[in-house]
Amino acid sequence: MDASSLRALIDDIASGACSPDDAVRQLRRLPYVDLGFARVDHHRDLRQGMPEAVYGPGKTPEHCAAIVEELLGATDGPVLLTRATDAQVKAVVAAAEALGYGPGIVTGSPLGMTSTVVYRPTEGRAGTVVVITAGTGDLPVANECTAVLSALGFQPQLLVDCGVAGLHRLLDEVDTIAMADAVVVIAGMEGALASVIGGLTPAPVIAVPTSTGYGAALEGVTALLAMLASCSSGVTVVGIDNGYGAACGVARLLP
Amino acid sequence: MDASSLRALIDDIASGACSPDDAVRQLRRLPYVDLGFARVDHHRDLRQGMPEAVYGPGKTPEHCAAIVEELLGATDGPVLLTRATDAQVKAVVAAAEALGYGPGIVTGSPLGMTSTVVYRPTEGRAGTVVVITAGTGDLPVANECTAVLSALGFQPQLLVDCGVAGLHRLLDEVDTIAMADAVVVIAGMEGALASVIGGLTPAPVIAVPTSTGYGAALEGVTALLAMLASCSSGVTVVGIDNGYGAACGVARLLP
Amino acid sequence: MDASSLRALIDDIASGACSPDDAVRQLRRLPYVDLGFARVDHHRDLRQGMPEAVYGPGKTPEHCAAIVEELLGATDGPVLLTRATDAQVKAVVAAAEALGYGPGIVTGSPLGMTSTVVYRPTEGRAGTVVVITAGTGDLPVANECTAVLSALGFQPQLLVDCGVAGLHRLLDEVDTIAMADAVVVIAGMEGALASVIGGLTPAPVIAVPTSTGYGAALEGVTALLAMLASCSSGVTVVGIDNGYGAACGVARLLP
Amino acid sequence: MDASSLRALIDDIASGACSPDDAVRQLRRLPYVDLGFARVDHHRDLRQGMPEAVYGPGKTPEHCAAIVEELLGATDGPVLLTRATDAQVKAVVAAAEALGYGPGIVTGSPLGMTSTVVYRPTEGRAGTVVVITAGTGDLPVANECTAVLSALGFQPQLLVDCGVAGLHRLLDEVDTIAMADAVVVIAGMEGALASVIGGLTPAPVIAVPTSTGYGAALEGVTALLAMLASCSSGVTVVGIDNGYGAACGVARLLP
Amino acid sequence: MDASSLRALIDDIASGACSPDDAVRQLRRLPYVDLGFARVDHHRDLRQGMPEAVYGPGKTPEHCAAIVEELLGATDGPVLLTRATDAQVKAVVAAAEALGYGPGIVTGSPLGMTSTVVYRPTEGRAGTVVVITAGTGDLPVANECTAVLSALGFQPQLLVDCGVAGLHRLLDEVDTIAMADAVVVIAGMEGALASVIGGLTPAPVIAVPTSTGYGAALEGVTALLAMLASCSSGVTVVGIDNGYGAACGVARLLP
Amino acid sequence: MDASSLRALIDDIASGACSPDDAVRQLRRLPYVDLGFARVDHHRDLRQGMPEAVYGPGKTPEHCAAIVEELLGATDGPVLLTRATDAQVKAVVAAAEALGYGPGIVTGSPLGMTSTVVYRPTEGRAGTVVVITAGTGDLPVANECTAVLSALGFQPQLLVDCGVAGLHRLLDEVDTIAMADAVVVIAGMEGALASVIGGLTPAPVIAVPTSTGYGAALEGVTALLAMLASCSSGVTVVGIDNGYGAACGVARLLP
Amino acid sequence: MDASSLRALIDDIASGACSPDDAVRQLRRLPYVDLGFARVDHHRDLRQGMPEAVYGPGKTPEHCAAIVEELLGATDGPVLLTRATDAQVKAVVAAAEALGYGPGIVTGSPLGMTSTVVYRPTEGRAGTVVVITAGTGDLPVANECTAVLSALGFQPQLLVDCGVAGLHRLLDEVDTIAMADAVVVIAGMEGALASVIGGLTPAPVIAVPTSTGYGAALEGVTALLAMLASCSSGVTVVGIDNGYGAACGVARLLP
Amino acid sequence: MDASSLRALIDDIASGACSPDDAVRQLRRLPYVDLGFARVDHHRDLRQGMPEAVYGPGKTPEHCAAIVEELLGATDGPVLLTRATDAQVKAVVAAAEALGYGPGIVTGSPLGMTSTVVYRPTEGRAGTVVVITAGTGDLPVANECTAVLSALGFQPQLLVDCGVAGLHRLLDEVDTIAMADAVVVIAGMEGALASVIGGLTPAPVIAVPTSTGYGAALEGVTALLAMLASCSSGVTVVGIDNGYGAACGVARLLP
Repeated sequence: MDASSLRALIDDIASGACSPDDAVRQLRRLPYVDLGFARVDHHRDLRQGMPEAVYGPGKTPEHCAAIVEELLGATDGPVLLTRATDAQVKAVVAAAEALGYGPGIVTGSPLGMTSTVVYRPTEGRAGTVVVITAGTGDLPVANECTAVLSALGFQPQLLVDCGVAGLHRLLDEVDTIAMADAVVVIAGMEGALASVIGGLTPAPVIAVPTSTGYGAALEGVTALLAMLASCSSGVTVVGIDNGYGAACGVARLLP
Repeated sequence: MDASSLRALIDDIASGACSPDDAVRQLRRLPYVDLGFARVDHHRDLRQGMPEAVYGPGKTPEHCAAIVEELLGATDGPVLLTRATDAQVKAVVAAAEALGYGPGIVTGSPLGMTSTVVYRPTEGRAGTVVVITAGTGDLPVANECTAVLSALGFQPQLLVDCGVAGLHRLLDEVDTIAMADAVVVIAGMEGALASVIGGLTPAPVIAVPTSTGYGAALEGVTALLAMLASCSSGVTVVGIDNGYGAACGVARLLP
Repeated sequence: MDASSLRALIDDIASGACSPDDAVRQLRRLPYVDLGFARVDHHRDLRQGMPEAVYGPGKTPEHCAAIVEELLGATDGPVLLTRATDAQVKAVVAAAEALGYGPGIVTGSPLGMTSTVVYRPTEGRAGTVVVITAGTGDLPVANECTAVLSALGFQPQLLVDCGVAGLHRLLDEVDTIAMADAVVVIAGMEGALASVIGGLTPAPVIAVPTSTGYGAALEGVTALLAMLASCSSGVTVVGIDNGYGAACGVARLLP
Repeated sequence: MDASSLRALIDDIASGACSPDDAVRQLRRLPYVDLGFARVDHHRDLRQGMPEAVYGPGKTPEHCAAIVEELLGATDGPVLLTRATDAQVKAVVAAAEALGYGPGIVTGSPLGMTSTVVYRPTEGRAGTVVVITAGTGDLPVANECTAVLSALGFQPQLLVDCGVAGLHRLLDEVDTIAMADAVVVIAGMEGALASVIGGLTPAPVIAVPTSTGYGAALEGVTALLAMLASCSSGVTVVGIDNGYGAACGVARLLP
Repeated sequence: MDASSLRALIDDIASGACSPDDAVRQLRRLPYVDLGFARVDHHRDLRQGMPEAVYGPGKTPEHCAAIVEELLGATDGPVLLTRATDAQVKAVVAAAEALGYGPGIVTGSPLGMTSTVVYRPTEGRAGTVVVITAGTGDLPVANECTAVLSALGFQPQLLVDCGVAGLHRLLDEVDTIAMADAVVVIAGMEGALASVIGGLTPAPVIAVPTSTGYGAALEGVTALLAMLASCSSGVTVVGIDNGYGAACGVARLLP
Repeated sequence: MDASSLRALIDDIASGACSPDDAVRQLRRLPYVDLGFARVDHHRDLRQGMPEAVYGPGKTPEHCAAIVEELLGATDGPVLLTRATDAQVKAVVAAAEALGYGPGIVTGSPLGMTSTVVYRPTEGRAGTVVVITAGTGDLPVANECTAVLSALGFQPQLLVDCGVAGLHRLLDEVDTIAMADAVVVIAGMEGALASVIGGLTPAPVIAVPTSTGYGAALEGVTALLAMLASCSSGVTVVGIDNGYGAACGVARLLP
Repeated sequence: MDASSLRALIDDIASGACSPDDAVRQLRRLPYVDLGFARVDHHRDLRQGMPEAVYGPGKTPEHCAAIVEELLGATDGPVLLTRATDAQVKAVVAAAEALGYGPGIVTGSPLGMTSTVVYRPTEGRAGTVVVITAGTGDLPVANECTAVLSALGFQPQLLVDCGVAGLHRLLDEVDTIAMADAVVVIAGMEGALASVIGGLTPAPVIAVPTSTGYGAALEGVTALLAMLASCSSGVTVVGIDNGYGAACGVARLLP
Repeated sequence: MDASSLRALIDDIASGACSPDDAVRQLRRLPYVDLGFARVDHHRDLRQGMPEAVYGPGKTPEHCAAIVEELLGATDGPVLLTRATDAQVKAVVAAAEALGYGPGIVTGSPLGMTSTVVYRPTEGRAGTVVVITAGTGDLPVANECTAVLSALGFQPQLLVDCGVAGLHRLLDEVDTIAMADAVVVIAGMEGALASVIGGLTPAPVIAVPTSTGYGAALEGVTALLAMLASCSSGVTVVGIDNGYGAACGVARLLP
C-alpha cells in the first residue's frame, strides 16, 4: 500500500464507495505478514517512500520466491529483488509467472555477478538523475543503481568512465552534470571523482565507493574514506558498492 | 556573486542597463583572488550553491581575517568561519568591524570548543529541516550544523537527546520527524538513531557520526560504520563530527 | 560427570553404597582423557555448568568422531558438535550409532553452511529465553544459538526479521520481549537492534554481531563495535557469529 | 518511578486509596522531562530495571546539576553521575545540597581521573558479586564498577591484582570466585584473566577490557578482542573501560 | 657448508692435508648460486646457524625441485621445504630420488594443508623443547614447528589441547613445562596460554599466534596482539601461524 | 597520438603538406572515443607521456577486445592490457590478429596468475633501469613491471632474490645498483630491501610492496607501511603489487 | 665529502698535487664519526646524493648542536636540521655561530610548529620543481619541502590552495604544471589533487599526504591510501607529512 | 626468595642447620603479600627467573613506595621500578632511604620521559649481550632495556645509530654482533634493522619496535609488523617500546 492507494481508499470512505467496515478491515490489515522466516513489510512504501526490497544474500531461493509472492499479492507498488543469484532469480521468476506476471526486468552483470529483478516499476517520476562512474569496472554497481532508480520511476542518465586521470573526458560532460537534479558518483580506487563533481554542481551529490581496485584500495575502504573526507562540502556517502542505497537516497530527495 | 546577482546582471544586460563591456568586465573578474597563502573562491556560491567557508584549523588569525575581509568585500552572500579558535574569532571580528560590520553571529560551545562565525546570513529559505541528536554530548556538532543551516537561510528545528535507549522519547517526536523536508541525525556511540529515523520518514536523512563516547566508540568510527551499514535504505552519511557538511548537504537538496 | 552425578556419588559414599576405595578411584579418574590429538574434558560440566562442545573447524572427521565417542562413553550429559561439515556430521553420526545412539539432533542451515549436532539434550530447564534476529540473513547464527540452548535444556522462542528499519514489526513483540528472562539479540549490518531491545527490557540482553551485510559492515566488525558502544546500559556482547557463545552465556545466568 | 512504587500505586488503585483520576494523572505524567538540552528519562528504572545515569563528558557543570536536580525531584530511586570532572561534581553537590541532600557518595580515583557520584543508593540487594582485576592499574575502572554496583544495591567484593602471570595469586581465590553469583573481570594488556576465570566458574562472567598498558595493548583494543575471542564459552563483554556498563549488566541478571 | 665442515677444512689447511690453492678455491666458492629465479644461499647455515629453507608459496614445483637439488648437492646439512603443496612435494621428492635420496620426511596436515619436507635432518641436539598448543585446531602450526625442530636436531615434546579454559589440564603438565629448556606456545583465539605459561617457567617462551578461531579472532591478529601485550615479562613472539620461525628461534637460543 | 606524431602534424601544417582544414579535422578529433562502456583516451600519451593501459579486472573479454581494437586503430604508440585473464588475452589476441597484428608480447606468470599483453612496444629508450626483488615469490609483480617497462622502451635488468637476510647476495650487486638511473625495489614481508637499497644509491628508488608472505605480512600492508616509513630519505612508493605503476613512475622520470 | 670534492681529490692525485699517502689518509677517514649517541655519516652525500639531515625529535638540544657542529666541521655540503623545536634551533644556531656561521636559514611555521634549519645551501641546481598544495592548512608541510629543496639547490615554485573542489583555480595553473620537471603534490583530507595533477603532466609526480582534516581523514591515512590507489598511473608517494622525503625524492630524480 | 637462597635453605635442612619446623615456616610463607591495592609476588623470581618489577603507570607515588618497601623487606634479589614519573621516583627513593638504602640506580631520559629505578642489582652474570639501535631517537627504549639488563646482572654493550640507511656503519660492527650471545635490536620507523641483524648472526635476536617516527610509522605498529614479518628466520619480537620485556627475554635465555 503506497501513498496514492491510501488516498484512494480514504476518498472511497469519504464518498461512501467503501464501507467503514471494509475500511477498517483494509487498514487493520497487519502492516507485515509473518512468513516464519521473514516479516514482509507492506507499509514500508507508505512510511519510507520506497518499497521493501528483498535482499538476496542469506536467503534460499524458496525464501525469495515466497517473499516476492507475498509482496506481489498484497501490495501494488514496485517489487525489487537485489543481489540475487541465478537460482534465486529463477525461483522468483517462476513464482511471479504463476501469479500471471512476466519475467520481470532482470539487470544482470556481464561478469556473472548477482542480478537485480524488478516487477511493476513506478511510472515516469520527474527529476533528472545522472549516474556517473570513474571507470568501466564500476559498472556492476552502477547497473544496480540505475535498475533501482528505474524501478522507482526515474530515467537515469549513465555516464561511464569519467575518472579524474583524464579530466577532459569529465569536462565534456560538465553541462550534463550542472543541469542534473541529483548526481550519483560511483568510483573505486581513490574515489577522487566525488570531490571534483561536488565542486562542479550545486545539486545533491551522493557518492558510492566501490570495491574496484586492489592493494591500497583496500576493497573500497580507501574510496569510502576519501569520499567522507571530501573537500567538496555537502557531498554525502553511502556504503561500499551500495548502488541500491544511493538510488533510495535519490528517491528520498526527489519527491 | 550568487545566482540571484548573476540573474540581475543578465537582466541588466538584456535591458541595456549594463553595457556589454561592463558585463564582460564583471563576468571576467577572476573567479578567485590569490592572497598568496590562499585563493579565495568568489564563484563558489554560483557553482556549488553555497559560499566558500573559511575552515579555521591550520590558519593563523591573520590568515582568517584577511580571507574573511576579502570575502566580505568582493562577494555579497553569507560568509562563514568554521572551527575557529578564540584568537581567530577575535581577529575576524576586528577585521569585519573595520569594514563596518557588526560582531557577526558567533555560535560557540559551552565546553570551550571551537566556534562558528556567520556574517550576512541568507534570508528565509523554505523547507523544514529537523536536526536531531542522540544525546546531549552531540550538541557541539549540532550547534555547528544549525549555525550553518541558519547562515544558508534555513530555520532548523533542534531535537536533543532522543537516543534509541529511550524509544518513547523518540516516538513522541514522530510527527515532527515525519513532516520534515530533510532530517539531519547526529549521533555518537553506536549511531543507531540514524537507522531508526530512516525507517520513520520518507524524507532525505543525512547522518552525522560524532566522536562522542569512549572505548569501542573509537572516536566516531563505530558510529560512522554503523550509519554506512544502516539497514534503513537511502540514508546518506557525512564525515565524523561534520555538522558543517551535513548543513551543506541539506542546502544541496532543498533549493 | 555433572553436578547431579557427583552428588549421587557423594550420597553413595555417605550411605556406604560406595566404598572409600571405589570413591577414590572414581574421583581420581583423570578429569580429562588424553586422546593424543585432544584432551577430552570430562569435568567441564561440573566446573563451568555446561559440557565441552566439540568445535569442528581444524579437526578431521575421525578426530570429531573419536572425541564424541569418548564424551558419550565417559559422561552422561549433553554432547555437542558445532560448526561441523557434512563429512564431520557423517563420521560422528556413524560413531554414535555404533554406540547405540540415534542420529542426534542435526541443525543445519538451508544455505549449506555448517551444522550443529546434539546428543542427549538436557531436559526442561526453566527460564524464558527469546532469540531475536534483525533479518532473515541472521538465521544461520540464530539456528546455532537455539540448537545449543535446546541442548542445554531451554525452549527458546525465535523472533525473526525484527530490524529497526521497520520499528512496528518490533513493537508488536514488545510484550514478548518484556516478559523474557533473557534475550539474545542477533544482528548484522549496523547492529542497532541491540540498543533498541536493551532499552525495552530490564532482563539480561546478550548481543551477537553477525557477518551479514557487505561493504562498511566489515564482516561483522561494525555490528560488534556498535553493540559494544551501545547507549543502552548493561547490554553485553559475544564474538561475531558466535551463537554458541551466546547460548552458553544464557546458561550461565539462568541456573 | 520504579517497579515497587508502581506496584504501590496499583495497590492503592485496587484498594481505593487512589482515585482513578489521580491514577491516570500520575501514570500519564510524561515519562521524561524536556530540559531543552536533555530529556530526563523518569521511567527508565521501570523499563530497564536501572535508573538513568548522567554521563558527564560533553555536558557543562550546569547541565549536570540541572539534570540531577530534576532526577532527585521527580523520581525516588538512585541517581548517578558518571565520569564527572571536579567542576561537574562540585556543581552537582551544590544543587543536591540545595535540595536538602548530603554530599552524595563520591568515588574518585587517586590518580585524578573522573569521579562517580551516587545519591539515594538502593538498599541491600541479594546476590554475591565479585569484581576482580588483573592489575593495580585497572583500579579506576573497578572503582567505577563497584560504585555503580553499590548504587544498585549490591555489596561487591573487590579482588585486586590477580593477573595470570602469577597464577597462584589467582588460585588462592578460587573458592571465592566459584561461589559468586556473578563475576566481573577487569583486565587490560592481553586480557587473559577473563578466559581463566571463565574456566573456573559456571556463574555469569562479564569481562571489561581496560585501556591499561601500552604499545601492542592498543588502548584496550587488544584486551577487547581477546575477551571476545575467549576460549571459555559464555563469557560476555562490554566496551573498553566500561565499568558502569558491567555493573548494569550484573543488575540485569541478578534481580 | 656448516660450522663443523668449515672447521674441518681449516684443520686440513693447518695440517697440510689441503693445499692453500685448494683452500682458496673452496672458500672462494660463491656463497650462493644464482639459479636465475633464485639465489641459493650456501653459507646461511654458517652465518645464521640454520640452513636456508625453501618457502613454497609463489614458486612453481620446478623452482622448488631445482633449489632443493642445488642445496642437496652443494651443502651437507639439513634441507627444508616448507608450506609445500602436493605438486611441490611430488616434484621435490622426484628430484631428491634422482640424486639417490629417499622420499624425505614429509609432515603433512590431516586437513589437506601444506606440508613440510625434510632431508638429512641434524642428529641429536641437546636441549629439552616443549611445544604446547591451546587446542586441537592449532595442530597444523605445531606440526610445522616440530618438523623443523626435528630437522634442526631437537626431539620436541608435543603437548596438545592445554587451553586455559580447562586450567587443570594445563596444571597437570606444570612439571614438564618447568623443566624445559625452551617452550613454544601455540594458540589462536585470545592466545591467553602464552601469558599463563610465561608465568610458570623461567625458561625462554616463544609464542606463536595462530589463525584458529573466527569473528573477533581476526585471523590471528587478536592472539598476536594479546601475546605481545602479555603481562608475563620476557615472552617473545613470532608472526601468525609461523611455526617455522618459532623453531628457528629455538635453534638460535639452544646451541 | 603521441608527442612525435603531433610534431609531425605541426611540421606538415607549417610546410603546407597538410591543409588547415585537414589539420583542424585531425586536431578536433575527439580526445577520446565513447564506446558506451568505456571512453578510450587517445591523448593520454601526449598528456601523461604514457599510453592508456587497459586494466583487465571488471571488464568482459569483449570489452577488452573492443578497447584494444580502438587503441590499435586510432593511436600509433604502444598498447597495453594488464591483469588479464586467459579469456581476456584470447579475445584481445583474436581482435589484434583480425587487424593484422601478431599475437603481441604476453608475459604470464608460471603460477597461473594474470598476464600482461603488449602491442607495438616503444623502441630503445635510454636509461638504465634495475628491477630488484627480495624473493622468488615477488616474481609475478616484477614480471608485470618489466613487461610494462619494455613496452615503454626500456631494457630493464632484473635481479631476483636479493633479500636482506642474506646481505652478501645483495652486496655482490652493489655496483649494478649504484650505476642505475632508476631502481625499482619489489619486496613483500617486511619490505626492508627498500631501505637498504635507498641507502646504497643516489638514484631514484621506487618501492613496490607485494602481498607475498602470510600472517603479520597482512597481504602487503606491512611492506607498504615499512616502505613509507623508510629511514632512507627520498624513497617513493606505489600501491601494493603495483608493478605497472612503478614502471609508469620510471617512465615519468626518465624522459 | 660530496661528489665534486671527491672528483677534486682524484684530480689532485692524478696531477700529483696530492701525494698518495695524503690521498689514502683522506679517503680512509672514517665514513662516520661516532659521537656516542649518534654516528654522523660523512659519506651519505656521496652515496645517496644528499647530505644526512639531523631529525630533531628524540634528541636533546645538545645532541642536535653536537651533530650539526660535527657536520659543519667535517663536510662541506649543506647541513639540515628538520622538525626542530625552538630549543633545538637555539642550541644549533649558537653552536654554528661559535664556528663562525651566521644564524642559518630557519623556516618556521606561523602556527608554532617545528622548524627546518639550513646551513650552506647548495647553489643553483637546474630543474623546474613545482610544489602545489590543496589547501592553506597544508602549508607547514609545503614549507618543510621547499626549505629542503632550497637547501639542495632548487628554486621551487609554490602554488597554494589549488584543491579540486574549485577546479578552475587549478586549471589556471595547468601551464605551470605542464612545464615542470617534477611536481610535488601536498594534500590532506581525500588527497584527490594527486590524481588530477597526475593526469595533467607527464613529469614525475611525488605525492605527500598530510594530516590536515579531521574525522574520516584519519590523520592522513585517508589521503595516503587515496594517493597510493590513484587512478593516475606512475604517481609515487611518500609518508604522511613527509615534506622532507618528497624533497629528497626530487633530488634523486633531477641530477 | 630466589633460586640460590632456596638452595641454601634446602642445604641447611639437609645439614640440620635449619630445623624442619623452621623450614616449613619459611616455605609456607605466603608467596605474595596482599597490600590491598596490590599483591606483591615474592616468589616470582623463583618461578620465572626474574623479580617482579613495579610498573609505574596507574599507580600513585604512595602505591609505588609501599610495594617497593615490601619487596626490599621481604626478598633479597633486585627490585625494579619501571616507567616511573618524577613523583614516583621521589616517593620510592624516600621509602628506600628510610630502609637504609641509597638512592638506587635511576636511569632517566634526557628528554624528560619516565625513569627506571633499580635496587640491589644482581652481580656479574655471564653472557655477552649487545643492544643495538637504529637511531638516536630509540635511545629512551634502549636505556630502559640496558637498565633492566644491568639489574639482572648483565653488562650490555650499547651500539647506537646503526640504521640500515647507512649500511657501512652497521658493517663496522659485524664482528661485535657476530660474537654476541644475544642481540636486542631496537628500531622504529620501518624496523628493517631486525632483518639485517637476523641475517648476520646465529645468536638469538629479540626485536623491539619503537614508536619513533611519524605518519606511516603509525606509532610503532609499522615496525612491529615488519619485525614479525621479518624474512630472517628465528627473530622474535616483543611489544612496542618494551625495552623491559626484551631484557627479561634475554634473562630467560641466558641462564
